[in-house]
Amino acid sequence: MSKFAWVTLTTNDTYSLGALVLAHSLKRAKTAHQLAVLVTPNVSQAMRDRLKEVYNVVQEVNVLDSQDAANLALLSRPELGVTFTKLHCWRLVQFEKCVFLDADTLVLQNCDELFEREELSAAPDVSWPDCFNSGVFVFKPSVDTFAQITEFAVKNGSFDGGDQGLLNQFFADWSTADIKKHLPFVYNVTAYASYCYLPAFKQFRDKIKILHFAGKLKPWLIQFNSETKVASVSSEYAHAQDLIQLWWNIFCENVIQSLSTEMAGLAGALSQLRIGQQRTPEQEAYENQMRRQCWESGQIDYSGADSFENIWKKISQTLERKTEKESEETVVYF
Amino acid sequence: MSKFAWVTLTTNDTYSLGALVLAHSLKRAKTAHQLAVLVTPNVSQAMRDRLKEVYNVVQEVNVLDSQDAANLALLSRPELGVTFTKLHCWRLVQFEKCVFLDADTLVLQNCDELFEREELSAAPDVSWPDCFNSGVFVFKPSVDTFAQITEFAVKNGSFDGGDQGLLNQFFADWSTADIKKHLPFVYNVTAYASYCYLPAFKQFRDKIKILHFAGKLKPWLIQFNSETKVASVSSEYAHAQDLIQLWWNIFCENVIQSLSTEMAGLAGALSQLRIGQQRTPEQEAYENQMRRQCWESGQIDYSGADSFENIWKKISQTLERKTEKESEETVVYF
Repeated sequence: MSKFAWVTLTTNDTYSLGALVLAHSLKRAKTAHQLAVLVTPNVSQAMRDRLKEVYNVVQEVNVLDSQDAANLALLSRPELGVTFTKLHCWRLVQFEKCVFLDADTLVLQNCDELFEREELSAAPDVSWPDCFNSGVFVFKPSVDTFAQITEFAVKNGSFDGGDQGLLNQFFADWSTADIKKHLPFVYNVTAYASYCYLPAFKQFRDKIKILHFAGKLKPWLIQFNSETKVASVSSEYAHAQDLIQLWWNIFCENVIQSLSTEMAGLAGALSQLRIGQQRTPEQEAYENQMRRQCWESGQIDYSGADSFENIWKKISQTLERKTEKESEETVVYF
Repeated sequence: MSKFAWVTLTTNDTYSLGALVLAHSLKRAKTAHQLAVLVTPNVSQAMRDRLKEVYNVVQEVNVLDSQDAANLALLSRPELGVTFTKLHCWRLVQFEKCVFLDADTLVLQNCDELFEREELSAAPDVSWPDCFNSGVFVFKPSVDTFAQITEFAVKNGSFDGGDQGLLNQFFADWSTADIKKHLPFVYNVTAYASYCYLPAFKQFRDKIKILHFAGKLKPWLIQFNSETKVASVSSEYAHAQDLIQLWWNIFCENVIQSLSTEMAGLAGALSQLRIGQQRTPEQEAYENQMRRQCWESGQIDYSGADSFENIWKKISQTLERKTEKESEETVVYF
């Protein structure tokens, strides 16, 4: 079995949709290596069970549970705890080398050659290209490195308050030391920013290996028509429509079947979509409402869980009422 | 005298405002090296005279005039002629090494260490960081290189239709070959894009050496209050206000005095500003109109020349009429 692994992280059921699609994109690209996902406590058991079907390792990360020195140090600055969850990837010492991929990335072509690179290899961040983007990076698991980074974090904080700032401060010579540690941009193409230089995007489009839906607008938050299977984006993001559609294609072919109403957030809600089937008025109203909720929740965090459950309750009640009344046409407006 | 030179290019009187401010920014940063500017035929004689006061070399570039093989080759594809004017910098063989700076850049700190770098050194483009941005680059003048690039251009064109695409195709190994040829981003910071990753901008703000006002909104097109000497930008660009103000500070202190109505475009128009003086209603109306024109012309090219002349004609007529009528308060609305 490979000593190399792709590693991602998910912090709730909605974000796990990304992790599921990402895993399938890696399998479609015929990776020879293992898949590992870090999950925080609030990822539901139902979702963990589905993640286990595609990930070799589903590892819970709970800052409060682990008692080693590095973690205790982190606990002295609790505000860093959540943001730095990603750092726990360095503790996957059962693997010799890993590539971290954010759950909002999508692998378009086999990238197994990334494991030939050394720690820390990453692609430039489009906003400040002397920093690397921490959505895709090659690293070598090591408890020592984990301890060093957390110690560094406690001492220095992070200039952006997140893992990207911290990792750039820790691996400070990335921008000047070794060109081999500069991953080509095609390994971490920011889906929404790419249009800024459309000729380059067109020139290198076929070479893109990993797409990164960085920013607030995650693919799972995009309006999606379950009947036509087409994702439709606002004109502002029109250039990225075909990229977003790639995500939804994998979602429809490989992921939706494994979702259930036991899952929280958008995962539970999307489990109710009837892909490729003519939509009932209820279904249509449901999808429209879901989309509105998505856009709203996309602005904040994933607090939409409850409201989706409420929506689903309403839907269920309506459908039950409909079954009782049989032939009556009931259109639901929320 | 130094064998090294900073080189820029200007294609009309309006754009020459940038070249003048750039030259003064280099002098303020106490560069030890020479300054050279390439001018195309439509830069007025009045403007060339002013450029000569701050540039050691003012070199006309006229594709139609030069008869060497490389140029004749370029002539076979006239559509490339204008875009590739910048390539003529390689013909400045009186210098051993040069740094090209677009006229919409501004030097904030001494950067003479750039001449220690080899051809072709440049900073990553924020939109596609495997490409370098051709607004700032280190090169070695050579008629051979000039011939090779133009030959390459005729054969391959440019993927973006401009010099940046061409130069990236020609110096194709920039992204993978030598980290020393990756200039740190602080040598070419895109003023308007920097806010995308504000924490990084704040972290590295004091290290910025060269600002680049890439895009349509050039500093000289920004609303500027001649009385308060403050440039005011729309909320969309608010984060860049202090950067734009730096440009206008140099404009007020070093440039405006040298402008005259013999100049075309915005240069002629701005020569009429009375810096730091209370504005008459005419002056205010004039500046407001100028700003509107600027915004409009900012969307297209520099075709605003005529209209500025017309505005100025109107202003002059109004002022003359005012002088005749003496104490009458005349507010001009265009």
